[in-house]
Amino acid sequence: MSRDWTSFLRSSMPLADAMAVTAQTLPDGRIALAVPLGPNVNDKGTGFGGSVATLATLAGWVEVQRQLDQFAPASGVEIVIQRGETHYLKPIRNDFEACAILPDATELERFLRLYARKGLARLALTVEVHCQGEHVAQFGGDYVASRNAA
Amino acid sequence: MSRDWTSFLRSSMPLADAMAVTAQTLPDGRIALAVPLGPNVNDKGTGFGGSVATLATLAGWVEVQRQLDQFAPASGVEIVIQRGETHYLKPIRNDFEACAILPDATELERFLRLYARKGLARLALTVEVHCQGEHVAQFGGDYVASRNAA
Repeated sequence: MSRDWTSFLRSSMPLADAMAVTAQTLPDGRIALAVPLGPNVNDKGTGFGGSVATLATLAGWVEVQRQLDQFAPASGVEIVIQRGETHYLKPIRNDFEACAILPDATELERFLRLYARKGLARLALTVEVHCQGEHVAQFGGDYVASRNAA
Repeated sequence: MSRDWTSFLRSSMPLADAMAVTAQTLPDGRIALAVPLGPNVNDKGTGFGGSVATLATLAGWVEVQRQLDQFAPASGVEIVIQRGETHYLKPIRNDFEACAILPDATELERFLRLYARKGLARLALTVEVHCQGEHVAQFGGDYVASRNAA
């Protein structure tokens, strides 16, 4: 299943729309989420920490959804974040983007197997945030996928 | 020094404005930041994790600024977040608010002393997020204050 992530995120989450998030599919299938600096500045004119954490949170969420779309497409699924941690490495002076690192194959297999069996599983993901090729922030998130009762 | 936090945050950070953040001073002097659910929903119609992390990030930032306003008001200061971690405890089904826990007196004293001496100091803060009296998320942030060269 392929989704129009830009319009899905922006139509269902007002904050993603305010941030002007756009999604791009990378050659390996992952989804990178980009934002312009303008709507995402802080009082110092650099990238706002809240925007960085939010973009990374979304990029991780999209990766979990993408993996489930690929391997368990038939069932409705609800994905929520349980924990997210952002390390701010450098000031951000331009547009920036976030993309999840592909999950470790063993971890992913365990997650998908558990989800298939129990309808409930957790996946830990790392997301990197870049600005003009520089690694400006690092995010780790724990996401829980549960099968919709409906 | 007393600030109009609502207009400061909303005029200097577009995302705070998109979230419709409002600030309220508590009897003990702390600043609680509140948002309506509407602009801060996710695809499930509950509170968006990015908004929760952002509101908590701001509430911690405001607390650091407030402590410096109180105890080191003369000098220009720049406060940035270095690390932020959000634990999502419960789904959020209504307007929500974030407020920092008052820092431990010894920690605060160390922070202010170091800032006065070196113009550079870090403070770790805990922020709680509540929704209709329920504790829905917990945030820990490390903030760095540095004296402006200008």
